[in-house]
Amino acid sequence: MTSLRFFFWFLLISFSASAQKDYKLWLQYHKIQNAAIASEYKSNLQGIVSLGSSATSKISLTELETGISDMLGNKPEVKSVINGENNLIFGAQTNLNSDLQKIFQSDFTQINNEGFIIKSVLLKNKKQIVITGKNDVAVLYGVYSFLRLMQTNKSIKSINIVDAPKTNIRILNHWDNLDRTVERGYAGFSLWNWQKLPDFIDQRYIDYARANASIGINGTVLTNVNANALILTPQYLEKVTALANVFRPYGIKVYLTARFSAPIEIGGLKTADPKDTEVANWWKEKAKEIYKSIPDFGGFLVKANSEGQPGPQNYGRDHVDGANMLADAVAPFGGVIMWRAFVYSEHDANDRAKQAYAEFQPYDGKFRDNVIVQVKNGAIDFQPREPFHPLFGAMPKTPLMMEFQITQEYLGFSTHLVFLPKLFQEVLESETYQKGKGSTIAKVIDGSLNPHKLTGIAGVSNIGNDLNWTGHPFAQANWYGFGRLAWNPYLDAEIIADEWLRATFSNDENFIKPVKDMMLTSREAVVNYMTPLGLHHIMDTGHHYGPGPWVSNLSRPEWNPTYYHKADKNGIGFDRSKTGTNATAQYAAEGEKIFDNLETCPEKDLLWFHHVSWDYKLKSGQTLWNGMALKYQEGVNQVKEMQNTWSKTKKYVDSERYKEVEMLLAIQYKEAKWWRDACLLYFQQYSGKELPVGVEKSTQTLEYFKSLKFPFAPGN
Amino acid sequence: MTSLRFFFWFLLISFSASAQKDYKLWLQYHKIQNAAIASEYKSNLQGIVSLGSSATSKISLTELETGISDMLGNKPEVKSVINGENNLIFGAQTNLNSDLQKIFQSDFTQINNEGFIIKSVLLKNKKQIVITGKNDVAVLYGVYSFLRLMQTNKSIKSINIVDAPKTNIRILNHWDNLDRTVERGYAGFSLWNWQKLPDFIDQRYIDYARANASIGINGTVLTNVNANALILTPQYLEKVTALANVFRPYGIKVYLTARFSAPIEIGGLKTADPKDTEVANWWKEKAKEIYKSIPDFGGFLVKANSEGQPGPQNYGRDHVDGANMLADAVAPFGGVIMWRAFVYSEHDANDRAKQAYAEFQPYDGKFRDNVIVQVKNGAIDFQPREPFHPLFGAMPKTPLMMEFQITQEYLGFSTHLVFLPKLFQEVLESETYQKGKGSTIAKVIDGSLNPHKLTGIAGVSNIGNDLNWTGHPFAQANWYGFGRLAWNPYLDAEIIADEWLRATFSNDENFIKPVKDMMLTSREAVVNYMTPLGLHHIMDTGHHYGPGPWVSNLSRPEWNPTYYHKADKNGIGFDRSKTGTNATAQYAAEGEKIFDNLETCPEKDLLWFHHVSWDYKLKSGQTLWNGMALKYQEGVNQVKEMQNTWSKTKKYVDSERYKEVEMLLAIQYKEAKWWRDACLLYFQQYSGKELPVGVEKSTQTLEYFKSLKFPFAPGN
Repeated sequence: MTSLRFFFWFLLISFSASAQKDYKLWLQYHKIQNAAIASEYKSNLQGIVSLGSSATSKISLTELETGISDMLGNKPEVKSVINGENNLIFGAQTNLNSDLQKIFQSDFTQINNEGFIIKSVLLKNKKQIVITGKNDVAVLYGVYSFLRLMQTNKSIKSINIVDAPKTNIRILNHWDNLDRTVERGYAGFSLWNWQKLPDFIDQRYIDYARANASIGINGTVLTNVNANALILTPQYLEKVTALANVFRPYGIKVYLTARFSAPIEIGGLKTADPKDTEVANWWKEKAKEIYKSIPDFGGFLVKANSEGQPGPQNYGRDHVDGANMLADAVAPFGGVIMWRAFVYSEHDANDRAKQAYAEFQPYDGKFRDNVIVQVKNGAIDFQPREPFHPLFGAMPKTPLMMEFQITQEYLGFSTHLVFLPKLFQEVLESETYQKGKGSTIAKVIDGSLNPHKLTGIAGVSNIGNDLNWTGHPFAQANWYGFGRLAWNPYLDAEIIADEWLRATFSNDENFIKPVKDMMLTSREAVVNYMTPLGLHHIMDTGHHYGPGPWVSNLSRPEWNPTYYHKADKNGIGFDRSKTGTNATAQYAAEGEKIFDNLETCPEKDLLWFHHVSWDYKLKSGQTLWNGMALKYQEGVNQVKEMQNTWSKTKKYVDSERYKEVEMLLAIQYKEAKWWRDACLLYFQQYSGKELPVGVEKSTQTLEYFKSLKFPFAPGN
Repeated sequence: MTSLRFFFWFLLISFSASAQKDYKLWLQYHKIQNAAIASEYKSNLQGIVSLGSSATSKISLTELETGISDMLGNKPEVKSVINGENNLIFGAQTNLNSDLQKIFQSDFTQINNEGFIIKSVLLKNKKQIVITGKNDVAVLYGVYSFLRLMQTNKSIKSINIVDAPKTNIRILNHWDNLDRTVERGYAGFSLWNWQKLPDFIDQRYIDYARANASIGINGTVLTNVNANALILTPQYLEKVTALANVFRPYGIKVYLTARFSAPIEIGGLKTADPKDTEVANWWKEKAKEIYKSIPDFGGFLVKANSEGQPGPQNYGRDHVDGANMLADAVAPFGGVIMWRAFVYSEHDANDRAKQAYAEFQPYDGKFRDNVIVQVKNGAIDFQPREPFHPLFGAMPKTPLMMEFQITQEYLGFSTHLVFLPKLFQEVLESETYQKGKGSTIAKVIDGSLNPHKLTGIAGVSNIGNDLNWTGHPFAQANWYGFGRLAWNPYLDAEIIADEWLRATFSNDENFIKPVKDMMLTSREAVVNYMTPLGLHHIMDTGHHYGPGPWVSNLSRPEWNPTYYHKADKNGIGFDRSKTGTNATAQYAAEGEKIFDNLETCPEKDLLWFHHVSWDYKLKSGQTLWNGMALKYQEGVNQVKEMQNTWSKTKKYVDSERYKEVEMLLAIQYKEAKWWRDACLLYFQQYSGKELPVGVEKSTQTLEYFKSLKFPFAPGN
């Protein structure tokens, strides 16, 4: 009977499995299998002592109780005072007794307001573990960090950790509309149920805050950058306040997107000119109104004069005028303006990649202190791979905030397994050469290259109301990894994958090793089967689902994939070198030289910077055509290998998540082939060459691929 | 510490509680607290024997294993053959051994194909419990029925149940659009993730099928009656097939909505005229195509020539022409056409309530055998209360299907606790007088008044992708209750509430009694605070959220609430008696007489049928104005009482669902007052009278209520 039953197993899973595992993200708190480790934990965690009584302290206590009892199978005693030894004691600096104050005196000088200390200490000759920080939220970060050590089975015997975040704004950008659709959302719809707010607090709001706090995220922009002014009306601000109240004890500040024309749309003014006194006053009053009910309101994120959004240019003003006017409105309350650099002229220029730099670089040093300019990681738009955005090396006097996209707009939606921390790390490690070698993006971002009061990293959220939050179980790792990198932009993706896998699935090395390899390969795989060798933006237009290199009929030139690949009989690629648009000149001299020269330009960025002959010899010795075809095939093969890897994990993973990932990888494999076949058939028209040995031929025609339509693709 | 922690408890709940309880609906399978009952169960359920091996049998087995082991705390032995005594044996008739065949011989003559038998029998002198039916799905119904007995702590010692559904189509209508928005959906968005289908089978599809099977629902219309023809293209049919494959073993057939103009939109034809041979052939080919991949496809639900939908009238044909043409297309495959009677002329008539009858009654007996006409329970549109639809007494030669609305379009969305089986029961018990007294709607529907091959009940689904499926924990009871009434339209709402509460929350009588009372009162409460005494359709227009009796500026007269209440200085109400539109004449003579006469017309329907003076004396002795005001107040008081009742249930309910219902009742109370105040202030303009003693005065002005706007109300 057993074998027959296995055959139908996926029909037979009961409710509970589903709801539990997928929903719990990386906070599974599995029972620890390693007996030695479990026994070490038990002997070191005989009691818990909370030194605080704030809402945040209570969250820390509950989290420790839940985590420790789930992982060890028995509840540690919660004590109201420190007695005996081997307790876990936690509390903020001011709540420590004088002995503890003394012990940590020098450690406290090492950390900022959000940093924490976890140490095994001798207190009155008794061994205790203490988690502390300058306030309760910092302690909460320490608590999650401690639980992570346990989740990953690290020894805590002689624990000694002093850690602090390297950026001060670690924030999710939700492109959530008020009707709950999510622009570029592939995990269902918006978590924010505006209809039931403010009086109904969905448990998900709490669980969302908890998940974010566990990885150090301390801010959230609730609304789409393509903003609706209604969010700033009293009716909605009451709802925003309710969310802010839920998030506050988790250390998460609420931010909103400010529609630049709001003074007209909801304020009854005739203009939104930032130089108009009435307009400036309107924003000042609006800020006052917001801060009255949300005293720790974070500030505004603004997309202005880009893709049809209103902005200061509508009134002959510039980005500085707009940003500074808003900055003045929130400054009295400690608010921040995150002003996006993702803009491009509505009229054709010779290279879209150059526009943000051209527009923003001249403003370096002109923004108010509480403005931070938010720049996408690349100059086009969240491609599977882009060279870093030239602005990162070019505005030393302006705090720049990184904008990553966690949601996979151009990377297979929520059906493709792509571990994005590899992409993020590649960007953060990129050399800007702003102050010579070693001037990495990470150093620009965290203010260590040029000191700034404000530093930050934003991630466009991949979270929706799907039961598993992110659509793909492995997309949870991208949310997790974003948070970890926002905390520490120097973290290695491999460490992140390791942590996440252990916390989410299993500590079994037979599982960890191959699955971690799979994750670490996955980003290169998607580049290979979508846009190898520097190709970019050849996705089908609008929804960006699947290949569309043939699209050439849209009204603005840079909306067309043909604009980006420029394939012709002679070759393929966008010449951004001196012989072309000279976009390379936007990089610091040392970088410019590397990119500009066909020989030194990294092959991964080749067709981004150069138009290259089909017969060009790659480093492998292959011609460009053959090399490109082989890359497409390699991407497909890599996905096949991912499937193989996953098929061997059955015994380490609950059956439901196993099956989910299995189904999703099958889709990814199908779609990787679709990408390979559609792109190669299309480019073959120009190269006029046969596919090299080892590359499978398409079983469909190019016409078939062109005929595919996806009228209700999500997120569009 | 404990007390302080309680204060913050709602911030402190961990992930698991949320995901589990709310998601599991009425299939919680709580551990049985009553020791005597548990011991009886244990001694009678020592082994389980499955006599089948189909996918459906496997579902039955898993369900029994899960249910019994969760409820009893230990797993019964699963045996491959019958040995020993006190086993639970289940299997379809053909899989029974000859001894069992003999035992059940006469019982099998009592049941239809979906009926089941659950009996304690002596087999070879050994006591066994047997669940059987004519096929595996019928057995599955028996299994769920058996588990329900256990969930409600009924004795199974001498069990002897022979039960069969009284209708043959028990179906949910999902008004789900292909972009996953749900028309009149208040529980998130559509479960159907078309983007990821057919290759990704979301666990929720399985859990959805399971929940439906557990209450006997055997069909689902996946798409909105305001249909999109794309669902009939190969791209989407492949996805529909995947869902049908998931649902099949649970006994659930898939149906689709057919857009009447599909032959033009996706077929490339110039017309959709039902008398056109090409059109008829197109539908025949389409049916063939569908049945090739879904052999048990149920058929089509059609909304034609109503609210702008295309239909046969666009070509000068009538409903019979349209329905019969489609019926001929699906007939070779056993398919059914459910043709909606919800139509009304686009041009003003004197009474919208009369139109469906006027249009459809003349067609009685003219439809093909495989057409069933689907009629809303009332002649207007799913109001908190309507007299029954006159068509139910007027088409003896035509099978009529009941259309109930489970989603609370006009009843407070998913924020108001309203137990709808009370409404459904009121309708089903209504006397049509078609064949004299006793000719209830239930008898029209189940074919016992006039025999029909087809019988059915449809419910417009309240299911979405909210974690708890229905938005409000108590709205789950409406899904449950719909299913139970579709199975047996004579079931009492009190029994349904009792079953549901025990299966969902607790068997403790101290919980059951007051909460059941609360549920049974809740429907009258919503009538009282929204539309007492026969008032109807005075909701704000478009979204139907909140009161809008003042709306009078919409282009079609019957879109305006003022059309329905007709309040003036003299009185209020819609005169549908002989002195008015004579809609009463659409009822059978005996019913007509009752409704037509102001003295005999039930007061609950008074203003539906009569325009009544403000000074009219009600049976209570109160004037109409005072009586109406007191009803509004009574509704508010009833909600207050519901809050009181719920506040005493803390110890019987998990903290999360307790808190959810508490928050929702607080909203309901606030909104009940809003309804009372807005309506009374508005109607007071006409009555010119003071509020009677006992009715609270509004703290807001009428202008304030009129100013409220809800631009992103869901479901609109």
